[in-house]
Amino acid sequence: MQFEHTSKQYDVELESVRAKVLEMGGLVEQQIVNALEALTSADVNLAKDVMERDTRVNALEVQVDEDCSHIIARRQPAARDLRMIMMMVKTITDLERIGDEATKIARTAQRIYEQDRMYKPRFNEIKSMVAIVREMLRTSLDSFARLDVSQTVEVAKQDEQVDEQFRAAMRQLITFMLEDPRTISMSLEVLFVAKAVERIGDHAKNISEYVVYMVKGKDVRHTSLEDIERETQS
Amino acid sequence: MQFEHTSKQYDVELESVRAKVLEMGGLVEQQIVNALEALTSADVNLAKDVMERDTRVNALEVQVDEDCSHIIARRQPAARDLRMIMMMVKTITDLERIGDEATKIARTAQRIYEQDRMYKPRFNEIKSMVAIVREMLRTSLDSFARLDVSQTVEVAKQDEQVDEQFRAAMRQLITFMLEDPRTISMSLEVLFVAKAVERIGDHAKNISEYVVYMVKGKDVRHTSLEDIERETQS
Repeated sequence: MQFEHTSKQYDVELESVRAKVLEMGGLVEQQIVNALEALTSADVNLAKDVMERDTRVNALEVQVDEDCSHIIARRQPAARDLRMIMMMVKTITDLERIGDEATKIARTAQRIYEQDRMYKPRFNEIKSMVAIVREMLRTSLDSFARLDVSQTVEVAKQDEQVDEQFRAAMRQLITFMLEDPRTISMSLEVLFVAKAVERIGDHAKNISEYVVYMVKGKDVRHTSLEDIERETQS
Repeated sequence: MQFEHTSKQYDVELESVRAKVLEMGGLVEQQIVNALEALTSADVNLAKDVMERDTRVNALEVQVDEDCSHIIARRQPAARDLRMIMMMVKTITDLERIGDEATKIARTAQRIYEQDRMYKPRFNEIKSMVAIVREMLRTSLDSFARLDVSQTVEVAKQDEQVDEQFRAAMRQLITFMLEDPRTISMSLEVLFVAKAVERIGDHAKNISEYVVYMVKGKDVRHTSLEDIERETQS
């Protein structure tokens, strides 16, 4: 057995886990897109599809966790490889939770349209928020794939933008509810969708920060935008 | 150097990380208690204290992460020890996010009482939800400390209870808002606090599921209550 464990075989194993993380990332991105489509096009079947496909996201999480444990147990990874593995273990947790948020949006779509309520909300703010968090996720996964930290600050700035849009959406919904209390129940549905999208942004930001840890060996979680800027541009 | 790495020294290292995880758990439990107290007693100073102390929670997360990486790099942990380390890496992520939710509650308390609004909400539902999630967290940390899975099902059932209480609180708040639209803004504050508490319950449940993975080597995330029951009672 020991004979097979050439460093080439090791590289293949690491590469295979990295590929699974990226596959999982692609899958949750599609889940976000489909959940939004289900919501804006009143497509209950697509909403159900998103909910069902979440099991695939979960299965990938469990699989990558196992793969990482196996590699650690058999390979004694050194500093940089070990950081890579720890980063992947954390990344998939965030990807799985992005999947959960997409599922919540899909469940809201199902609830709204199966009941055929009177007040149909507009989703302009949600669409604009989703466009940003989707880009954040793509950028984070791309940074992960290329081990490139040049976009980390951009992702952090976009996260602030999403937070601001969330607050604006909330103010707007409060206005609607005050003008016509019959919209309260539906407005709360929209508000929780906005909250889910805002959380997706948080998770995407987490992923981009793990890449900094991987590449620079420096933990930039819980630090300011300025700190991240200093760390990633040096 | 190699000489010092006796298995006894190794045990001391592992034990020290476990102690830090439990310290972090105790700290976030206190953060939850203080955030609720700040909210229900209009104590803006206590709210600020919670927000400041979150940096200590974050620092512990970074520290435990580093400790775990060092142990893996230097010790080649075997199956069970490795599962323990991976479990701790995941546990502190959930603890850190519980800390975030406590901070959000404290921030809400500050916002509510600094503005001196007209409509003072009652927090009975929130108090009752917090009592349950606090017990969930204690039970999960106790399961972790004693590597005991006998309470996992109980924690999962309490999580369902918290979810149901959240839905009940939401229905009640909708009623308030319909009766008196002037309460809308404050009701939304209460609603987001309830949401934060519900999330704390989710994180506590995650922690108790990692213990099953550690003890049984079996991943019960993403499975039903029945599956957890079967796995933990065999």
